[in-house]
Amino acid sequence: MEVKVLKDILSANNQIAEQNRRLLASKKIMAVNLMSSPGAGKTTLILRTVEALKEKARIGVIEGDVSSSIDAGKLSQAGITAIQINTGGGCHLDASMVNSALANLPLDEIDILFIENVGNLICPGGFDLGEHLKVVILSTPEGDDKPHKYPLLFTTADALVVNKTDLLAHVNFDLDGFRRTFKGINQKAALFTVSGVTGEGIREWGAWVMEKLGEVRSAK
Amino acid sequence: MEVKVLKDILSANNQIAEQNRRLLASKKIMAVNLMSSPGAGKTTLILRTVEALKEKARIGVIEGDVSSSIDAGKLSQAGITAIQINTGGGCHLDASMVNSALANLPLDEIDILFIENVGNLICPGGFDLGEHLKVVILSTPEGDDKPHKYPLLFTTADALVVNKTDLLAHVNFDLDGFRRTFKGINQKAALFTVSGVTGEGIREWGAWVMEKLGEVRSAK
Repeated sequence: MEVKVLKDILSANNQIAEQNRRLLASKKIMAVNLMSSPGAGKTTLILRTVEALKEKARIGVIEGDVSSSIDAGKLSQAGITAIQINTGGGCHLDASMVNSALANLPLDEIDILFIENVGNLICPGGFDLGEHLKVVILSTPEGDDKPHKYPLLFTTADALVVNKTDLLAHVNFDLDGFRRTFKGINQKAALFTVSGVTGEGIREWGAWVMEKLGEVRSAK
Repeated sequence: MEVKVLKDILSANNQIAEQNRRLLASKKIMAVNLMSSPGAGKTTLILRTVEALKEKARIGVIEGDVSSSIDAGKLSQAGITAIQINTGGGCHLDASMVNSALANLPLDEIDILFIENVGNLICPGGFDLGEHLKVVILSTPEGDDKPHKYPLLFTTADALVVNKTDLLAHVNFDLDGFRRTFKGINQKAALFTVSGVTGEGIREWGAWVMEKLGEVRSAK
């Protein structure tokens, strides 16, 4: 009975995700689902990426939060086209929320759409939003054992961004060991090390995002 | 339909939580539900607390994780009575999982039971486990805006532990401002500032835990 209901929800979600995918394709927009723990630096990464790519691509943002519009406020202060979704207690975005947000964004003026999911390393992993890429951000103070503890997000990510490298000297995070173990559980994902504070690594990450935009646009 | 099912689940959970509460009372055990984002320092706080209270109380631990037994391993290496629950993808502990764990713990040898919930600032807030106290841990690198973004856990906590004060000089966290805004949303909660690395603040936190144990035991 419970399983039946869950199946229905997921199947409805997948249908709307498919609609989102078609709409994004018709507008030549690449959508990136950004997922992480609370406070890992999703919004800061978006701000840095917009800065790095401002001559190359127009970026829009869907901001997902349980409550508040703190992050959409930060983005909009920086002149970024952003729309806030409050889930009202919900622990992840779903395709239908993104569908509503898409209807309220100037899609003809966007090349790359970042969808900042709710801060949660578990639940967002189960919901297709119609995105092209799943990107997980892990911040160094969280520790290097997180892929083992939260396998779904880490094994299905297209890219992993290790953020807050500026804190590496002060926290318990073995970056070399981490690279090896992460490659062991996810061979296909690109791995970036960045600092939202110093800007380290943002150029490499931005170059990868642009490369992926090219691939999405040249796909038939 | 969905709401109906959810109601049934919560009502079944509350019944089992009540059973847990009765079992804990019969054994004079105080149970503390520890909740935080991934990597905020729940396990380290438990290790430090056991060290601080070792002459005063016998501590047992229920370890909740989506996957892996890394944390239970750390505890058991330190000689602490611990049992691991893997939720297998589930984003929070529920009363039934705790009920099974209780059946496998030497309850006559435990005064304080820490229940380390799954790393998640959202979902654990909806599930009563039969605990006496809800304690939320927030680590300074996560930022001082978290209570506004994840209101349920922060407004219902009996205590908030701000961890990783050793990183305050390196991160963007205004502790004085945070104290004021947190008191504004939760007047009743005790607020502690600690460092799992240096041990700062652990004595005050430990004294509060012992005070609460006294209250639980003297309640009729």
